[in-house]
Amino acid sequence: MIVVLKDNPDKRQLENLIAWLKSMGLDIHMSEGHSSTIMGLIGDTSEVDVDLINALEIVEAVKRVQEPYKNVNRKFHPDDSIIKIADDVEIGGGNFQVIAGPCSVESESQVCEVATRVKEAGAKLYRGGAFKPRTSPYAFQGMREEGIKLLLEAKKQSGLPIVTEAMDISHLPLFEDVDVIQVGARNMQNFELLKELGHLDKPILLKRGLSSTLQELLMSAEYIMAGGNEKVILCERGIRTFETATRNTLDLASIPLLKTMTHLPVIVDPSHATGIAHLVKPMAMAAAAAGADGLMIEVHNDPAKALCDGAQSLTPAAFADMMDAVNAILPHAFRG
Amino acid sequence: MIVVLKDNPDKRQLENLIAWLKSMGLDIHMSEGHSSTIMGLIGDTSEVDVDLINALEIVEAVKRVQEPYKNVNRKFHPDDSIIKIADDVEIGGGNFQVIAGPCSVESESQVCEVATRVKEAGAKLYRGGAFKPRTSPYAFQGMREEGIKLLLEAKKQSGLPIVTEAMDISHLPLFEDVDVIQVGARNMQNFELLKELGHLDKPILLKRGLSSTLQELLMSAEYIMAGGNEKVILCERGIRTFETATRNTLDLASIPLLKTMTHLPVIVDPSHATGIAHLVKPMAMAAAAAGADGLMIEVHNDPAKALCDGAQSLTPAAFADMMDAVNAILPHAFRG
Amino acid sequence: MIVVLKDNPDKRQLENLIAWLKSMGLDIHMSEGHSSTIMGLIGDTSEVDVDLINALEIVEAVKRVQEPYKNVNRKFHPDDSIIKIADDVEIGGGNFQVIAGPCSVESESQVCEVATRVKEAGAKLYRGGAFKPRTSPYAFQGMREEGIKLLLEAKKQSGLPIVTEAMDISHLPLFEDVDVIQVGARNMQNFELLKELGHLDKPILLKRGLSSTLQELLMSAEYIMAGGNEKVILCERGIRTFETATRNTLDLASIPLLKTMTHLPVIVDPSHATGIAHLVKPMAMAAAAAGADGLMIEVHNDPAKALCDGAQSLTPAAFADMMDAVNAILPHAFRG
Amino acid sequence: MIVVLKDNPDKRQLENLIAWLKSMGLDIHMSEGHSSTIMGLIGDTSEVDVDLINALEIVEAVKRVQEPYKNVNRKFHPDDSIIKIADDVEIGGGNFQVIAGPCSVESESQVCEVATRVKEAGAKLYRGGAFKPRTSPYAFQGMREEGIKLLLEAKKQSGLPIVTEAMDISHLPLFEDVDVIQVGARNMQNFELLKELGHLDKPILLKRGLSSTLQELLMSAEYIMAGGNEKVILCERGIRTFETATRNTLDLASIPLLKTMTHLPVIVDPSHATGIAHLVKPMAMAAAAAGADGLMIEVHNDPAKALCDGAQSLTPAAFADMMDAVNAILPHAFRG
Repeated sequence: MIVVLKDNPDKRQLENLIAWLKSMGLDIHMSEGHSSTIMGLIGDTSEVDVDLINALEIVEAVKRVQEPYKNVNRKFHPDDSIIKIADDVEIGGGNFQVIAGPCSVESESQVCEVATRVKEAGAKLYRGGAFKPRTSPYAFQGMREEGIKLLLEAKKQSGLPIVTEAMDISHLPLFEDVDVIQVGARNMQNFELLKELGHLDKPILLKRGLSSTLQELLMSAEYIMAGGNEKVILCERGIRTFETATRNTLDLASIPLLKTMTHLPVIVDPSHATGIAHLVKPMAMAAAAAGADGLMIEVHNDPAKALCDGAQSLTPAAFADMMDAVNAILPHAFRG
Repeated sequence: MIVVLKDNPDKRQLENLIAWLKSMGLDIHMSEGHSSTIMGLIGDTSEVDVDLINALEIVEAVKRVQEPYKNVNRKFHPDDSIIKIADDVEIGGGNFQVIAGPCSVESESQVCEVATRVKEAGAKLYRGGAFKPRTSPYAFQGMREEGIKLLLEAKKQSGLPIVTEAMDISHLPLFEDVDVIQVGARNMQNFELLKELGHLDKPILLKRGLSSTLQELLMSAEYIMAGGNEKVILCERGIRTFETATRNTLDLASIPLLKTMTHLPVIVDPSHATGIAHLVKPMAMAAAAAGADGLMIEVHNDPAKALCDGAQSLTPAAFADMMDAVNAILPHAFRG
Repeated sequence: MIVVLKDNPDKRQLENLIAWLKSMGLDIHMSEGHSSTIMGLIGDTSEVDVDLINALEIVEAVKRVQEPYKNVNRKFHPDDSIIKIADDVEIGGGNFQVIAGPCSVESESQVCEVATRVKEAGAKLYRGGAFKPRTSPYAFQGMREEGIKLLLEAKKQSGLPIVTEAMDISHLPLFEDVDVIQVGARNMQNFELLKELGHLDKPILLKRGLSSTLQELLMSAEYIMAGGNEKVILCERGIRTFETATRNTLDLASIPLLKTMTHLPVIVDPSHATGIAHLVKPMAMAAAAAGADGLMIEVHNDPAKALCDGAQSLTPAAFADMMDAVNAILPHAFRG
Repeated sequence: MIVVLKDNPDKRQLENLIAWLKSMGLDIHMSEGHSSTIMGLIGDTSEVDVDLINALEIVEAVKRVQEPYKNVNRKFHPDDSIIKIADDVEIGGGNFQVIAGPCSVESESQVCEVATRVKEAGAKLYRGGAFKPRTSPYAFQGMREEGIKLLLEAKKQSGLPIVTEAMDISHLPLFEDVDVIQVGARNMQNFELLKELGHLDKPILLKRGLSSTLQELLMSAEYIMAGGNEKVILCERGIRTFETATRNTLDLASIPLLKTMTHLPVIVDPSHATGIAHLVKPMAMAAAAAGADGLMIEVHNDPAKALCDGAQSLTPAAFADMMDAVNAILPHAFRG
């Protein structure tokens, strides 16, 4: 880390700063230029708060050279991490996987029927929402515990491992037989939840927050890995911008960029990102082309029956068509 | 709610839509124009998901006329809510209050000394962080349970009611003697936490999320009020934009706008919004002028001792100066 | 267009509104509901300003049903527009073209050498900046008139048609032999320039502004088409968001979305969007997969000589590698 | 400027970088640390492009220490600039001025009547749009040359100096008798126009672009000052964010922040920023409290006649009420 001091910094403040930095175990290189003094901080600066130093009166500017993340950093772990979810399902390191299923679990027949259909089309993991984060307290909040049971029933019938979202630490006991626990975009910085997940031995699917930078996403993954759980899958699902033509703005450049920063697998959720069913296929194809390690796709069953699952979901037939298109792209996709 | 249909909508889909809307207890007015058909939905549409309808193939556009919030809505509660925090401390309805204190609780001497100083300067509530949401798992996470105890000690010594942040449902038992529970920006859509807080009989300070619209902020307040707890204070603390010269962009127009939408009090936190100490005073003055019901200000003690609290915090002397400036504005402030 | 009125609207204001709308040639359908009155405006509403109506005291909400653009609207022109640039160079309607060349024109040898190299790799149009919009008045502003001459020399030598940016109406006489005139992101709403370009018989490459919605991009294209020039190519080049890891956020969902809204071709500029050379190839591949009609790529010559063209530019060898990767994707790309 | 190099940088590339920096007249201080090498660039770095260096393969990070602007920089001009507009109208350095008038010039009676009314209420400058930037080519584009004539007539009758917007270099001859030329938000980076304005001896009102950083605003002011025209007034008018409850997000923290960066006066336009008439007064009051040097306010005449000017405009009576409220704040406003 580099700290540029202002001209003629107050001596006592400078001494305080140096003493405090040394107390954090850092070595300090002073290099006095003709109009400014530069301090080079050597050692582990991951605990140093850039904002705080930046705000000191005697400081002109601060620049972090070292990344603040360690366990997720590709520098210290050059090979792709491969996350094993089931005997025949791995993700990362060349293993591309598609997670598919309905937005919400609604009934046993629905959840089992969709599982059968997405499995036929080539999905290797099954998703469905039991706990649903909803903007309105008056909207359907999910089937909760009952929903988890139905998902496990679908798993038994289809053989597909299950991915579903936990919204609170208190829900975790219900997730024992769930294969992958999803952390939703709104919980990406629910640090207490992340710490708990760090103590599990189970893959975590971590979705990027609506207004989170890539570095913040990696710092949240670092929370999980710092606790000992190395099985983290990152998911780009769109960020909030001024553009309202799509629900969010899908940031596909994050795929190749994240993959230079971290060894963790990166998947993409074009359903939530766009909120528009006819954009899911082209964005799934684009994500595959850009080097994503997988996709997460909303698929609903009969639209005549489940009228209101339609906003961003594909029918099983449209999903199968999308899978064909993605599979045609994959052999030609970007690989670093 | 108005739903504009596309030309020649598919009949079966239209019947499904109508049946589904009726099943939600809504009356439907069809008005067929020369090139488009308009459906007017009459009844309580707060449970209807605009995105879902918008995404149906047969729908051209949807427009919500009625707000999706009820308890927080000024239409149904025209008078300002006044939240009573202590015998002599009310906020809202013309009662302007300043909450002040350090970012983090660090020691008994620190927390008690700052309390004395901010009380002298006119603060009527005391804040301090015991549980600290930090981007990095390696950064100081707060004194937690011990921090709450120190805050309660400061309350005893100073007589000031205490405001502090809860990050997880599991922390709530520790907050029994806390006067106001703060929900941080990152937890504004932690719906499970909001539901729990809805069952308490204690004021809740709800901070706007970094990328939350005002309507989303009100929907989160609605979660708390729907549970029965009517003591909600809203807090504008800056939103995330492309501008990086300040940490966030303080949206002061939200004050008069929120006050037309809701009867709840609205306060402003210029410290976190700007992240720059010398901007706190002018933004506190501007917030007061625009009609805010209060302020939340970070104040640290001796900067030579507490070196790294400085980024956005005022010294007690600077805080007293700010209070004088705000008090001079208040008699001339905007009042609806 | 639908206008929802507030309860008990002021009569005189309502009469004024109706009179004014009728004076614009619109028919008005009133439909009185139990708690609100809805006005349906029938006729050409493209000249009606939604913001203005929305702000009237008696108006609760306004919803545009009809798009405000006509000439660019796919509804009135269902087939893809194909823009002919040279005898053997068309873009749109299945014709995918790559525009390549240096950021700035620097010398005859540079501009001609790069032209040879990008032509060999398969580019069909040549770009280079003669007039350069620069944030700083002290930065190189381009070779201007001399730069245009060098580009025309490169065109003569390579046979490639030329694309270059005009920044002001007064420059246009110099562009007579230029094949495609580019309107830069910062000029997307330079309406006087757009009007002038509407009177030319020459293809215009219109780049999306940094904070422009897709509808605003189409309205700017409408300015050109309204003047009689139907040869407009749209270019997505990233929007400004809170994320600073890339220079801008490339919005690839705009490709399939624009193509449902308009018949005009849509190309993508991954060089400016990301600002990072190693992201150009994966984003070019993703854009091709998502159905773009072409790409615009910065290519520089010897990096040892042209040190500072490097930020977002590819070497000719890297460009050739990118072209191979894009050509492998194209047969499998999304086609509506 | 500080350049942090990667470990073991390529020698030839490093030599090229050093040679190129020296060719720009910079001295270079190398300081080799244990894991990274830091180059300090000494001299005038305002012409160095941070993005370009940042993108070089051998570079880890770049940090600008010196601001890239000179003439507008308060460091080199510590006293407030006072811009003289007429014998008795100065702005800046403690002179607070209000510019008011209609959005568009529509007729002589309208333009003269509003001038009389805003003068009575205390406005010292008169504004009105003759050239109107409109998103749609089908919307009213202003009275143009005729509008300028009407404004000059209003100036003659009222004695108020005139502020109006120029959209293109070719319009400038019409502006000879205009007192202040406005550069609109969409033209903030119309660099050719800025250069022309730099050669005039007339005050320029420069509005911040919808997605422009404060540094970019200052760089655009630098374009004008670099040409010799020192009479620049900056105007905050809201930035584009995800929040759609207001038309733009008014960034009032920009007032005190700009005033530390530059000596130029800073005014605020709450009418365009919010787009909602009832927010104009509280935001005008907040801007005054935060230390603005003036305001720009839209005022229309009889709303029954000019129905559609209403969105963000005040009536003359509401404007007079706002002036009273602002005048009550001013003696207590923030002053550095």
